[in-house]
Amino acid sequence: MSLSLMQRCIEECGRCHDLCLQAIAHCLRKGGRHAEPSHITTLLDCAEMCATSVNVMLRESPRHRRTCELCAEVCDACAKSCAGFHDDDEMRRCEAECHRCAELCREMSRNG
Amino acid sequence: MSLSLMQRCIEECGRCHDLCLQAIAHCLRKGGRHAEPSHITTLLDCAEMCATSVNVMLRESPRHRRTCELCAEVCDACAKSCAGFHDDDEMRRCEAECHRCAELCREMSRNG
Amino acid sequence: MSLSLMQRCIEECGRCHDLCLQAIAHCLRKGGRHAEPSHITTLLDCAEMCATSVNVMLRESPRHRRTCELCAEVCDACAKSCAGFHDDDEMRRCEAECHRCAELCREMSRNG
Amino acid sequence: MSLSLMQRCIEECGRCHDLCLQAIAHCLRKGGRHAEPSHITTLLDCAEMCATSVNVMLRESPRHRRTCELCAEVCDACAKSCAGFHDDDEMRRCEAECHRCAELCREMSRNG
Repeated sequence: MSLSLMQRCIEECGRCHDLCLQAIAHCLRKGGRHAEPSHITTLLDCAEMCATSVNVMLRESPRHRRTCELCAEVCDACAKSCAGFHDDDEMRRCEAECHRCAELCREMSRNG
Repeated sequence: MSLSLMQRCIEECGRCHDLCLQAIAHCLRKGGRHAEPSHITTLLDCAEMCATSVNVMLRESPRHRRTCELCAEVCDACAKSCAGFHDDDEMRRCEAECHRCAELCREMSRNG
Repeated sequence: MSLSLMQRCIEECGRCHDLCLQAIAHCLRKGGRHAEPSHITTLLDCAEMCATSVNVMLRESPRHRRTCELCAEVCDACAKSCAGFHDDDEMRRCEAECHRCAELCREMSRNG
Repeated sequence: MSLSLMQRCIEECGRCHDLCLQAIAHCLRKGGRHAEPSHITTLLDCAEMCATSVNVMLRESPRHRRTCELCAEVCDACAKSCAGFHDDDEMRRCEAECHRCAELCREMSRNG
């Protein structure tokens, strides 16, 4: 296992968690389509799964590949949900972050 | 410290956490005033502080009085936020639960 | 989706979370083999994955089948870890609870 | 409220959370006095309160001063617990981080 891959994954999941929580505050303020249940729920799921993934890695648990695998899936779903708001800079940033986090979590789940 | 008071407080905080998360799903579905940022944020804060309070008690930590004290405050704020929706049964249930949880957390913070 | 299966799963995951956290306090007190890193880490992973699983279900998220599937795996690992302490009542209770929770989470991941 | 103070506090709490979880893995490996219940419990409390504090700030909740105030207290307790291991570099790093986080959280609770 490469320590630097894991270190990068911990940092990426941390950033993704933070961005998703900030995105929720933004989306609730905007209201309308931004505050639809499925979008907010997906952002909450993504923030929570990123936090769980970070904690499992920091605990040096042998289960980190499986939690990273699921985290990648949830990040994919969140990127897709954010992609529905092309004219919103904050949603585009969140989409890009979720993509990066999904990529790294997938790599961790295979080679971490 | 009375074990039964702590046991009741753990259960009450668990119930309050669950009801607040269910209330969020309900409020996002209803939309409009139900989905205002301050209301959803308060419900999220309450669910999280209840979970933290439960975990600190289950760890038998000497800090449980302080976390229960803050949890009572957050539950009070959440009860007040829910009280703004008198014609909504789910909000009334959540308000009542937050009141009960605040009372028990306050008792724990003083005598637990 | 059967609501009652989900309701039972939420309750079971909540109970399993609580029992795992109490088991950690117990194991740290006992020390020695009880406090080995792999055992405590597994108990912490199980408590956290149960909490995540509960939250995803309470949010009525479409991802609950996937989180329940992973939760079942982590509960299996925790039951196995607790099974190494046959002469300890608290470990036996935790093992039994993890088994029940794993069963219900598996059912949710297939039919929930 | 100064955004940069809050941003720094979010980052500091995130670092403190991560370091405390890594410290737990380290302490359980070392065993003996490092794995005493009160020390591990304090590290777990600190990691959890830091996470709660981060989440409340990221949600832009008006309750962030109160959660930061309690977070500072828990960080103080954790720094004190780590200070009992002067010959251990990882404990010294954790102690220093908890001090920094406590300072910043206290500043947030007064001026944030």
